[in-house]
Amino acid sequence: MTLFDVSPRTADLHARLTKFMADHIYPNEAEFARQVQEGDRWAHVQLIEDLKPKARAEGLWNLFLPLESDPKGQFGAGLSNLEYAPLCEVMGRVWWAPEIFNCNAPDTGNMEVLARYGTPEQQEQWLKPLLNGEIRSGFSMTEPDVASSDATNIQASIVRDGDDYVINGEKWWTSGAGDSRCKILIFMGKTDPDAERHVQQSMILVPMDTAGVSIDRALTVFGYDDAPHGHMQMTFKDVRVPAANLLLGEGRGFEIAQGRLGPGRIHHCMRLIGQAERALELMVARAASRVAFGKPLAAHQHVQELIAQSRMEIDQARLLTLRAAHMMDTVGNKAAKGEIAAIKVVAPNVALKVIDRAIQVFGGAGVCQDTPLAMMYAQARTLRLADGPDIVHIGTVAKEELRRQGVDLRAKRSTPAAQK
Amino acid sequence: MTLFDVSPRTADLHARLTKFMADHIYPNEAEFARQVQEGDRWAHVQLIEDLKPKARAEGLWNLFLPLESDPKGQFGAGLSNLEYAPLCEVMGRVWWAPEIFNCNAPDTGNMEVLARYGTPEQQEQWLKPLLNGEIRSGFSMTEPDVASSDATNIQASIVRDGDDYVINGEKWWTSGAGDSRCKILIFMGKTDPDAERHVQQSMILVPMDTAGVSIDRALTVFGYDDAPHGHMQMTFKDVRVPAANLLLGEGRGFEIAQGRLGPGRIHHCMRLIGQAERALELMVARAASRVAFGKPLAAHQHVQELIAQSRMEIDQARLLTLRAAHMMDTVGNKAAKGEIAAIKVVAPNVALKVIDRAIQVFGGAGVCQDTPLAMMYAQARTLRLADGPDIVHIGTVAKEELRRQGVDLRAKRSTPAAQK
Amino acid sequence: MTLFDVSPRTADLHARLTKFMADHIYPNEAEFARQVQEGDRWAHVQLIEDLKPKARAEGLWNLFLPLESDPKGQFGAGLSNLEYAPLCEVMGRVWWAPEIFNCNAPDTGNMEVLARYGTPEQQEQWLKPLLNGEIRSGFSMTEPDVASSDATNIQASIVRDGDDYVINGEKWWTSGAGDSRCKILIFMGKTDPDAERHVQQSMILVPMDTAGVSIDRALTVFGYDDAPHGHMQMTFKDVRVPAANLLLGEGRGFEIAQGRLGPGRIHHCMRLIGQAERALELMVARAASRVAFGKPLAAHQHVQELIAQSRMEIDQARLLTLRAAHMMDTVGNKAAKGEIAAIKVVAPNVALKVIDRAIQVFGGAGVCQDTPLAMMYAQARTLRLADGPDIVHIGTVAKEELRRQGVDLRAKRSTPAAQK
Amino acid sequence: MTLFDVSPRTADLHARLTKFMADHIYPNEAEFARQVQEGDRWAHVQLIEDLKPKARAEGLWNLFLPLESDPKGQFGAGLSNLEYAPLCEVMGRVWWAPEIFNCNAPDTGNMEVLARYGTPEQQEQWLKPLLNGEIRSGFSMTEPDVASSDATNIQASIVRDGDDYVINGEKWWTSGAGDSRCKILIFMGKTDPDAERHVQQSMILVPMDTAGVSIDRALTVFGYDDAPHGHMQMTFKDVRVPAANLLLGEGRGFEIAQGRLGPGRIHHCMRLIGQAERALELMVARAASRVAFGKPLAAHQHVQELIAQSRMEIDQARLLTLRAAHMMDTVGNKAAKGEIAAIKVVAPNVALKVIDRAIQVFGGAGVCQDTPLAMMYAQARTLRLADGPDIVHIGTVAKEELRRQGVDLRAKRSTPAAQK
Repeated sequence: MTLFDVSPRTADLHARLTKFMADHIYPNEAEFARQVQEGDRWAHVQLIEDLKPKARAEGLWNLFLPLESDPKGQFGAGLSNLEYAPLCEVMGRVWWAPEIFNCNAPDTGNMEVLARYGTPEQQEQWLKPLLNGEIRSGFSMTEPDVASSDATNIQASIVRDGDDYVINGEKWWTSGAGDSRCKILIFMGKTDPDAERHVQQSMILVPMDTAGVSIDRALTVFGYDDAPHGHMQMTFKDVRVPAANLLLGEGRGFEIAQGRLGPGRIHHCMRLIGQAERALELMVARAASRVAFGKPLAAHQHVQELIAQSRMEIDQARLLTLRAAHMMDTVGNKAAKGEIAAIKVVAPNVALKVIDRAIQVFGGAGVCQDTPLAMMYAQARTLRLADGPDIVHIGTVAKEELRRQGVDLRAKRSTPAAQK
Repeated sequence: MTLFDVSPRTADLHARLTKFMADHIYPNEAEFARQVQEGDRWAHVQLIEDLKPKARAEGLWNLFLPLESDPKGQFGAGLSNLEYAPLCEVMGRVWWAPEIFNCNAPDTGNMEVLARYGTPEQQEQWLKPLLNGEIRSGFSMTEPDVASSDATNIQASIVRDGDDYVINGEKWWTSGAGDSRCKILIFMGKTDPDAERHVQQSMILVPMDTAGVSIDRALTVFGYDDAPHGHMQMTFKDVRVPAANLLLGEGRGFEIAQGRLGPGRIHHCMRLIGQAERALELMVARAASRVAFGKPLAAHQHVQELIAQSRMEIDQARLLTLRAAHMMDTVGNKAAKGEIAAIKVVAPNVALKVIDRAIQVFGGAGVCQDTPLAMMYAQARTLRLADGPDIVHIGTVAKEELRRQGVDLRAKRSTPAAQK
Repeated sequence: MTLFDVSPRTADLHARLTKFMADHIYPNEAEFARQVQEGDRWAHVQLIEDLKPKARAEGLWNLFLPLESDPKGQFGAGLSNLEYAPLCEVMGRVWWAPEIFNCNAPDTGNMEVLARYGTPEQQEQWLKPLLNGEIRSGFSMTEPDVASSDATNIQASIVRDGDDYVINGEKWWTSGAGDSRCKILIFMGKTDPDAERHVQQSMILVPMDTAGVSIDRALTVFGYDDAPHGHMQMTFKDVRVPAANLLLGEGRGFEIAQGRLGPGRIHHCMRLIGQAERALELMVARAASRVAFGKPLAAHQHVQELIAQSRMEIDQARLLTLRAAHMMDTVGNKAAKGEIAAIKVVAPNVALKVIDRAIQVFGGAGVCQDTPLAMMYAQARTLRLADGPDIVHIGTVAKEELRRQGVDLRAKRSTPAAQK
Repeated sequence: MTLFDVSPRTADLHARLTKFMADHIYPNEAEFARQVQEGDRWAHVQLIEDLKPKARAEGLWNLFLPLESDPKGQFGAGLSNLEYAPLCEVMGRVWWAPEIFNCNAPDTGNMEVLARYGTPEQQEQWLKPLLNGEIRSGFSMTEPDVASSDATNIQASIVRDGDDYVINGEKWWTSGAGDSRCKILIFMGKTDPDAERHVQQSMILVPMDTAGVSIDRALTVFGYDDAPHGHMQMTFKDVRVPAANLLLGEGRGFEIAQGRLGPGRIHHCMRLIGQAERALELMVARAASRVAFGKPLAAHQHVQELIAQSRMEIDQARLLTLRAAHMMDTVGNKAAKGEIAAIKVVAPNVALKVIDRAIQVFGGAGVCQDTPLAMMYAQARTLRLADGPDIVHIGTVAKEELRRQGVDLRAKRSTPAAQK
């Protein structure tokens, strides 16, 4: 199989997903917006609940869990990252679509953490209903008062007290916590602030209804609140949970985060490719139908440049992302560190460029509620920040390249492999 | 006076404006947001009404009207475009500030049209209350169903019927029409669709309360509705107004539009420079106060590059805009056509780059409601579309350059001046 | 096999080529320059002649001919485009290296034309010595007086006269014609200027020693003459060759050009990837060894950005090129038209960016004769022009995308596939 | 007077210079190339010597020396930097033209150093013949073995020995030293390597014919040797000169360098603007005269974009440069540090972009000897390195901006002025 060929199973799923999107998602975009606008913005959306059983019935459910995290295929569909990637792209074309297939962030990452590191009890209590799409979850890591790109800055504390842990801290950008169906959070904080840099942190499960957990406000993204999902600022004040809620062990928060981030990033990137691809389709359709100065926009050389640049950038970003997926499948997330960092930079930047061009071709319709473009832009923009800003990933790519060429900056000696 | 020196009068106004912003505007940004959120979003905001008399009392009122449109200084402050530009920049630093000084779009453009082309009756009825800040106005040109970058596409009709004109059409992006104080619109439509290309159109005054005028919906810009100002989609169905409401004469709509656009663009560009300058200030402040990897962000080379690039781009964009203002003052809007087109491309693109960098330095705080950056971005983004997309202005710059070098594309002969 | 895996045969050839480069090419770069400088710049270079038999003895010879053009493997190594691509990249790392392996332009393209379209007699007379590396060849298409991006502009004439054709015209950028070993040209001109646009042209074989063939001057590329290869301006005055020298038939010049260009472009692109990769290696080595402001350049964040951006761009350009190669192998050059056009834009632009960054890291050493960077830059720059300027390929990418989405600009009707 | 108006004296000189260029320079470009190619490349060019008296007779001589360095106007024309800038731009349009007016680098900088810091004896011996254009000079600072962007890296030594200084070191990029008329060098080296960072260095006058001074080789710039001017690598071995040759005093090398660099940079930048302006003219002329796909290139939207972007960038870069000149005139070189650094980044980068576009419009003619474009590009490229690489100036701009906003990185406390 080359990258352009896909396994028969992926091809089949891809065809069925594409049809599902055409039959049930694109025609319902206005209806989704209408249902959110009506009544409680943070209540579940009936349309979502109606479509989920349909998707599940068609076998389009929980496709995300990579084999590595679920070797016996007991939780998910048993696809490799490379097999899942093109499917993730299709789902990503509409922002609220992934949930229909139970493949939406941050639930996918949280389910993967539970599948990999959860105890049987934790899996029974939280993973099972998540896999069934009965509840939703959140991930509380980022804090408002410090530069979270440097994880050692985190200030939240998780302190052992008898059979419990007591949690205190201020978190924001806990995405999904706005949803009334959100029942469980994975919380990151320091169990030992004096430990060595990478073992200060731990992750722990915090049920949303625990005393001391409160939602302070909904953050907006360029004016959007992304209801009912939402991005919440939350206070954790003397929150007490059983010690059994700790994941993997004290000081292993970083380790879990690393394991979690790889696939999560691939997913975000593939969805961004899907968004960019859709923006290009919309741009082409508009350019074909609008006339200015005597000919369709699509016949203007400038618009053709916008289309061609978009096609070239998307194709490159997709290939880079697929390569990273393939590396994760074959050499593992750790060895694919540089490749994963690269797509984290490339994918959102390409998506933003393509969406921006589409907005420009649409004119006023591009920035308002008449197309999905402005919201796509807002969401893609946050992905140059979420999981760390571009520059952090650029640093990783550079360091991996230096390492690959035998340059050791710490050792102050350098033995580059390059021939003059 | 060089560009870096300003007239004593401008220097004095600049200092007082800067103080007014510091005393009354920046400290009230959260309060403004709070008042808009409360009660009717489209009602007037008390804070605005409270600050207007203060500004007027300090002589910071109606500074915008260029001498050319108001040669006797009977309506405005009698400043040249070059003198007004640095003041406009200061006001533009906060999106709702210009109204405090009665210098906000689209009222400024509309007042200028009335000052230049209005009859004494029209001036008495509409210009006077506008100059007093008692009412607001809108400008209805763009239409949802056609590419408005090509103005011949406009479909709205203005048909003479006895002593009246009867108006029909669908308009959108009528900015300011959401405001409950908006009482009058300048409407553009075709009086003679069969006339030669540039004399098909006319402009006419339409009071908001005329029968047949209706607001269909508020358009959003990314996720913002910009209340109480707003960007409205409106239907005009058999709207009947007296023939005396016509501006300047049938077929002279283009002529008015051209006269109107020059100063309007300078204003938008100076406000964008103000926004960019403020974004840079915020970026620097954040970079100085946040620490990552052991030192303030401002000490990271990457952040220094963001700061330096922003400074270099802003300074260039400002100089280009001031030059255009100077050209308008000295050779007139028509001869300054290429210079005006150039800033229309440069200013919003520079502002977007600077604001985007500031967002990146702020991280999550940059995209949410905690800084003005995301809304700045949304507004600046529309200015790559309003008054025509970038590519239209780029075409103007190119054609002016070809003309300057003696190339006549229409004549199929070309006599370039360049020495080999 | 994915794009990232290679066939065992390619892997073996790749390893041996890499070793050959390390053993015989890199250590001889200064020697090559020395030998060119000495004596007649346009005479053969002894170093080249010495290394060719070595390469041939190791089986590193004529690897370029794709299976499609040589289905029985009678001329070349029988590799697919996808198999050849990584080998071409390695050879491309030094500009004069491909000839050592008999894989250099324009001989490869000319040999492919002869293999596909040549008669047995033509193959015996010209293809055989070319495959043996005994003679060199040139390709005369571009003309100084017209915009060659539009091939209908070509003015050279090929007129039937009895058993001969008589050729007249002015050509330039006939690369390789400077070499004293160059014995044969493929010449493009019009046999029927009044025919339909795409059948006006023919290709014909013109021995260099034919009466009326003259070299007017050597063109420089920036300040380089690329001796002994060279880029020649030539006059063809009443040049008479036997009718049997015509390739394929009158009016089939375009057809041959199309068939020739696909693989030729892939080759150029892979060599450019090789150049970019080498520039990055040099950049890293320099950054690791030079110290400024107290630490190696490689520890400066700015330099790390240069390294990371280069890595990300090269990897994307390589993947896009490999994809195009794979498409050519599986669906054919014609169906891969858009993909081939895309790499023609992407590869030289990426190479130029990477080389430019390397120059910047090297400082003065980067622009002078002490590194291969400045010459790499000059050569890569011409590849945004050769085979047509970027904008022509951008137009092809756009048109292919429009076609893919069902937009037919000529039919004035458009039925875009995009869902709203 | 605004930035766009010029003093009557400048206007007059500008008109006469423009005429001189049209009468004597543009028509002689081919002749200059011919004369250099003939005979000794490093001998003086007769054309230059013939034109110099003509220019001098017309009062177009030594216009460069700013009032600040020559307050009594005893050496030069007594123009301010702002007055000289537009003249420098005109001369810069052809690379060898400034010498005709005795306004070429590095002689201008060297004359300025002698005018400001030279003793009457030094001025009599070296400044006078330089002002008369009888001899040429060089400036030896950069060294091949260290990163010269960090001036503390300099290794050359200047050691006091009795009444002499003994000089040792290896220098390269000593521009102008190739010229047979070059008689004197200003040499920078360390008199006290153990002193505080900014007082280790001194500058000293070294006559070219001193024993121990040798030229090792001519460096090329993208294949050009820029003969007869040249960029030389030189060895200084036990070179002994009288102690009186020291400039200003031991340890004051930095101080002189700072004073020298300001005007020198403005000059380079204005010449680059001139080059860019000329490249745009050539681009327009070519676009007007070549036809592709049925219409002149100038009628293609893509080419119009190239033209418009160039116009907008050039105008901004020129305004920024004029502003820096004005700042130097009014607040001094030191206070204008940030503004000078900014143009050092902007001007060459803009010139490179414009020239590159012109090359693209010209096609093959753009990279070869048929237009001045390729050589322009090569020279402009070095100006992103000479006087320090872009990133060093970017750092200066950033630090000046931080300072302006009250951020003190060293003090670890920061009191940014920005209002939230």
